[in-house]
Amino acid sequence: MNGNAFEIPQTMKAWVLGGVDELLQVEKPVPAPGPAQVLVKIDAVSICGTDIEIMRNGLPAIVQGGSPFNKNFTIGHEYMGRVAKLGEGVDTYKIGDRVAVEIHAGCGQCERCREGMYTSCLNYGQNYEGHDKGHRANGFTTDGGFAEFAINHVNTLVHVPDFISDEEATLIVTAGTAMYGLDVMSGLYAGKGIAITGPGPIGLMGVAVAKALGAYPVFLTGTRDDRLEMGKQLGADYVVNVRNEDAVKAVRNIMPKGIHYVMECSGAKDAFNEAAQMVQRGGRICLAAFPEEPYPVDVAALVRNNIYIFGIRGEGNSATHRAASLMEQKRISVKPLHTHTFPLDELPTAIKYAKERIDNAIKVVVTNKK
Amino acid sequence: MNGNAFEIPQTMKAWVLGGVDELLQVEKPVPAPGPAQVLVKIDAVSICGTDIEIMRNGLPAIVQGGSPFNKNFTIGHEYMGRVAKLGEGVDTYKIGDRVAVEIHAGCGQCERCREGMYTSCLNYGQNYEGHDKGHRANGFTTDGGFAEFAINHVNTLVHVPDFISDEEATLIVTAGTAMYGLDVMSGLYAGKGIAITGPGPIGLMGVAVAKALGAYPVFLTGTRDDRLEMGKQLGADYVVNVRNEDAVKAVRNIMPKGIHYVMECSGAKDAFNEAAQMVQRGGRICLAAFPEEPYPVDVAALVRNNIYIFGIRGEGNSATHRAASLMEQKRISVKPLHTHTFPLDELPTAIKYAKERIDNAIKVVVTNKK
Amino acid sequence: MNGNAFEIPQTMKAWVLGGVDELLQVEKPVPAPGPAQVLVKIDAVSICGTDIEIMRNGLPAIVQGGSPFNKNFTIGHEYMGRVAKLGEGVDTYKIGDRVAVEIHAGCGQCERCREGMYTSCLNYGQNYEGHDKGHRANGFTTDGGFAEFAINHVNTLVHVPDFISDEEATLIVTAGTAMYGLDVMSGLYAGKGIAITGPGPIGLMGVAVAKALGAYPVFLTGTRDDRLEMGKQLGADYVVNVRNEDAVKAVRNIMPKGIHYVMECSGAKDAFNEAAQMVQRGGRICLAAFPEEPYPVDVAALVRNNIYIFGIRGEGNSATHRAASLMEQKRISVKPLHTHTFPLDELPTAIKYAKERIDNAIKVVVTNKK
Amino acid sequence: MNGNAFEIPQTMKAWVLGGVDELLQVEKPVPAPGPAQVLVKIDAVSICGTDIEIMRNGLPAIVQGGSPFNKNFTIGHEYMGRVAKLGEGVDTYKIGDRVAVEIHAGCGQCERCREGMYTSCLNYGQNYEGHDKGHRANGFTTDGGFAEFAINHVNTLVHVPDFISDEEATLIVTAGTAMYGLDVMSGLYAGKGIAITGPGPIGLMGVAVAKALGAYPVFLTGTRDDRLEMGKQLGADYVVNVRNEDAVKAVRNIMPKGIHYVMECSGAKDAFNEAAQMVQRGGRICLAAFPEEPYPVDVAALVRNNIYIFGIRGEGNSATHRAASLMEQKRISVKPLHTHTFPLDELPTAIKYAKERIDNAIKVVVTNKK
Repeated sequence: MNGNAFEIPQTMKAWVLGGVDELLQVEKPVPAPGPAQVLVKIDAVSICGTDIEIMRNGLPAIVQGGSPFNKNFTIGHEYMGRVAKLGEGVDTYKIGDRVAVEIHAGCGQCERCREGMYTSCLNYGQNYEGHDKGHRANGFTTDGGFAEFAINHVNTLVHVPDFISDEEATLIVTAGTAMYGLDVMSGLYAGKGIAITGPGPIGLMGVAVAKALGAYPVFLTGTRDDRLEMGKQLGADYVVNVRNEDAVKAVRNIMPKGIHYVMECSGAKDAFNEAAQMVQRGGRICLAAFPEEPYPVDVAALVRNNIYIFGIRGEGNSATHRAASLMEQKRISVKPLHTHTFPLDELPTAIKYAKERIDNAIKVVVTNKK
Repeated sequence: MNGNAFEIPQTMKAWVLGGVDELLQVEKPVPAPGPAQVLVKIDAVSICGTDIEIMRNGLPAIVQGGSPFNKNFTIGHEYMGRVAKLGEGVDTYKIGDRVAVEIHAGCGQCERCREGMYTSCLNYGQNYEGHDKGHRANGFTTDGGFAEFAINHVNTLVHVPDFISDEEATLIVTAGTAMYGLDVMSGLYAGKGIAITGPGPIGLMGVAVAKALGAYPVFLTGTRDDRLEMGKQLGADYVVNVRNEDAVKAVRNIMPKGIHYVMECSGAKDAFNEAAQMVQRGGRICLAAFPEEPYPVDVAALVRNNIYIFGIRGEGNSATHRAASLMEQKRISVKPLHTHTFPLDELPTAIKYAKERIDNAIKVVVTNKK
Repeated sequence: MNGNAFEIPQTMKAWVLGGVDELLQVEKPVPAPGPAQVLVKIDAVSICGTDIEIMRNGLPAIVQGGSPFNKNFTIGHEYMGRVAKLGEGVDTYKIGDRVAVEIHAGCGQCERCREGMYTSCLNYGQNYEGHDKGHRANGFTTDGGFAEFAINHVNTLVHVPDFISDEEATLIVTAGTAMYGLDVMSGLYAGKGIAITGPGPIGLMGVAVAKALGAYPVFLTGTRDDRLEMGKQLGADYVVNVRNEDAVKAVRNIMPKGIHYVMECSGAKDAFNEAAQMVQRGGRICLAAFPEEPYPVDVAALVRNNIYIFGIRGEGNSATHRAASLMEQKRISVKPLHTHTFPLDELPTAIKYAKERIDNAIKVVVTNKK
Repeated sequence: MNGNAFEIPQTMKAWVLGGVDELLQVEKPVPAPGPAQVLVKIDAVSICGTDIEIMRNGLPAIVQGGSPFNKNFTIGHEYMGRVAKLGEGVDTYKIGDRVAVEIHAGCGQCERCREGMYTSCLNYGQNYEGHDKGHRANGFTTDGGFAEFAINHVNTLVHVPDFISDEEATLIVTAGTAMYGLDVMSGLYAGKGIAITGPGPIGLMGVAVAKALGAYPVFLTGTRDDRLEMGKQLGADYVVNVRNEDAVKAVRNIMPKGIHYVMECSGAKDAFNEAAQMVQRGGRICLAAFPEEPYPVDVAALVRNNIYIFGIRGEGNSATHRAASLMEQKRISVKPLHTHTFPLDELPTAIKYAKERIDNAIKVVVTNKK
């Protein structure tokens, strides 16, 4: 294949939402890119916990009103591939470019989009083409990546250097989410302490990125020793298995006045309170995980200690580009997170591995390279 | 009295903490100001809900370890008066200057103090004189204002212009707290919407200050019509009595995508969740009130909607000076908040009025002008 | 006319650039709005100093490469009117809406646009339609407002309330530029001092906006007493005629340690140095005017005194909406700035008035209401 | 020596300012630390260009009024040593602690100090002991380090780990200044480009710190190949010898739209203009060097391109601690900068080496370890 000769069929294989916990493989038309969009030939997709959540409960992202949860919708948002076709006027990418993707293309017009918070686009879900509110969130409100092709706005593309494998490239957006969480809390990490709670993919990437930015000390808390061990490899100075040890005490033991930052990536019940007890007065917390249900929070402690809290959903403000640069500079490695690969046709098996953490699965990737 | 002739006795009348819900009047030595401190002759003190809280439950501000809650401790932190004596080297104030006070003099050395967050001083409560951690929080960790005299660090003084009465001047720090809450959320209010939840003194001052900064629309929510009416006088565009109306719906009715900011001043159970439902995606919440106990919070909603939350305790970053300037410019008025005056000797009666809101009391002031 | 029946002709009268200092009236096709754009029926246009500058020297805004300076280009960027036709998918405006306009519609994709700095769009001037870099700067890189109709991206529209006249509405973007300059320096003005140097339209609006935000004291410096007098009406606490008085001394006389902020709106030679001498150590300067040529600057003084400087060009980050809100709240008035009105057909006369300040002209407006 | 037994003599050897370009060695009383101060036994001092400048022209730092430039004043500000005696109440350091120092102890009370900008303390130079304005700037307004002992406020101390040599430790404040320059421009460097102009000690440290924070690409410009070569070792991706190549073109060649950041460390004539031409629209410049005299600056270009400029003087906001942490984490090395060592008694020779760059001297250190 060369830059001028990407063969694009009329239809493609795609997985779509079926019943609860079910995906169905169908044949769908290959979509056409509009202005400022490209068609991406998908080579690899990583499975995210949110994919599994959507299969179970529907799309969580729709704030109000209508949902695309229907039998023809394709999920999957952590993908990479090659540019296969250019929409009208696109000249910043060319056919054949290897790209990873961000999930969200905001409308570009609302207050949030105009401050880089496009994951919080105020026109979220209002993505009908040609409209003046052209929001996209691939895999959430517009078709995603468990398919042979997908449409992406040029804003959501990140170049992938040759030395990064397809599987690793699917994790660029994960690293970008961790970077974004760090960005919104503060730009200043060198010489400051941070605790990452929860060694899932975002938490582990949080360790790697915080360390790359000079944070010290970096704590990682979790319940499984193998994940914590991986955290150490990625740069954690201290790991705490909360089954054996009180995480707040472990942090306060090293930093008696509390730590500067906490990035909460576990979604565990009570994690917000523990974060508030870990940070020093005037400390900052990033909430990056979704607890299953509301739980009692000691709001007075947040007030009394002047704590600032930053909820983040996804990867705004071009943080993904900055994370990709750290990868390109070989300052962070996502390789340890990738544990399993399956062909796209075996997506249900791949999801089973991810969901049940079979064989200590962390990031399970499906590939469709041709 | 002139600038050279302030008569300072050896001892003074002061109220001190007795048993639960009890204050005792005693005779105490008049304290001596150290370097960078002045002695303030107290003319008026306003009663704050926190005073009542401390009488009931002890001092909430002590993060860890020892407390000054003892039979010789004088509470009271919203006071004003005149400079009566200068500590070593003080040259920015002179005898006789009319001053209102901030509560907190941070240590001036920790990370928080060096970024203006002195209410979150990392050496909070470590206030022994002469030490390299000279934190003071008058009425919380060091003697406060229900007395004839008090010591204040020069950092905590605010000049009071002649046309502002003693009673009004005690409310400068209340206005400063509202200003600080607004400052930490954002500097940009003109043309942006804000909802203030809870029409206590800080909430009412929040209405006045937000309006003075050009916020539009300004909502105020509460349970009592007389307070809401006062909110209207102070500038609220919309008031919502939550006994009759759903506050979230009322806000969303005017601003379907949600409001830019919420300042939570009620401490009511569930108020944090309601604030999160009021703000738009990427909106900001300031938590400025202490709920009595933890309550279930929908943390996932904070994450999903990229909400930023700012706990504030008190009046940091010289916001009090900025609030005082708005008063001096006659852009905000605190006068409506002041409802009752008693002599200092009748402090228990004054507290009863404040606590039980007798005669629709909002701000009850005790005076000791001589 | 009603919302459904705006008659749109095939061609329109428009003024275009001729030779140096010359505009020619021609008949041009009425343009058609693309996706996310509207056609505006222009009712009034204010003449800006930059218009006069462009007629003399060509378009200054083009950073690199090609320029639209040609015999068919229509300048004029401070206009208002009514929405006459909707581009594909536009649903946030309807036919007949009264609107004022911002000049710049950034590409929405570059780093600058994604942080609200769309006046500094990195794809400035790359405005060919349908392209993935759809930057517009009406009157600079795309046709402007000295015509019967113009195209505007929906991002650049601001609703105009009924009680604001057409003439005043043309000044919304001027107020927005002043607001933007204040925004980028700091969000905190209440109780802080600012000097505005240069009583042109942006400087005068700077006085009004800074005052509305609670700044104190507000200085205005200039060379003409009538302008300074107008500054007083708009809220200046002190005015300094630099023909009679040294401006730095006048500021330092009131504020011996220097003032917090300077907004430089004169473009006068040496104004940057004077600003640096006016501000306190760690003070901030906004540069909002274009000096004719380079002049010696004491760079070492900027370093020694930790001065932060913010160049601004135009009206980014939706500041225009915030300025319009202050107008709608009647907290600032632009009325005093509007001094003369001419019909669009007499544009050359109007420009002569503006250029030569005939009859103390400040803002000269041309109208074409039908 | 142990923690309890530091022998402190009555007098000490100290170099003091003589005539122009002259230092004299005298015997002075060893000073006594006040509250929150310690006495430092000086082990090593690095010579800074500013020392040489002061010997020639007097103290540049005094903004207004009186100067300590007299025959008894000791300069020298980049020193390290061991804590020899504790002032009243100091408990965060103990006798024998190895420490490097920041230069500035702000008053802790002014607006600047309360936002971490203590190098711009509004009470600069008002350093009389016991006063409510206790500013110190050792080597500038209070006695410095070319002596056996010096007084330091606890705020100015940084712990030095054992594996860092005395000579390297003197450069901690240099690294801290580079870090501070980067901090004030932005916290976000990962994946962003920066050009450092001028390969002096601050510039070279700027390269190392920017690289450690993930900046890419990092340019270094200068006139001497050996310095540029050292810049490469410290992490520069591109070096430009401006004798052979146009620096602006070199940067624009790699980054056609301009670079994100420039840190100007050369003080060269025209460097500000070149920086403005290097950065992209909306880019940022830190001015960290003192040009000898004013030179013509294209102010209009700063305005047209929305450039933000940050003058910095010294090392504010605890950046020195953060830089020290990067050294402790072995993420930056200052070792290459240290080229020569002389005993304190040979200070004039050491200064000659530094001034005339004899033997390619970069950082020349004098030591007095006993």
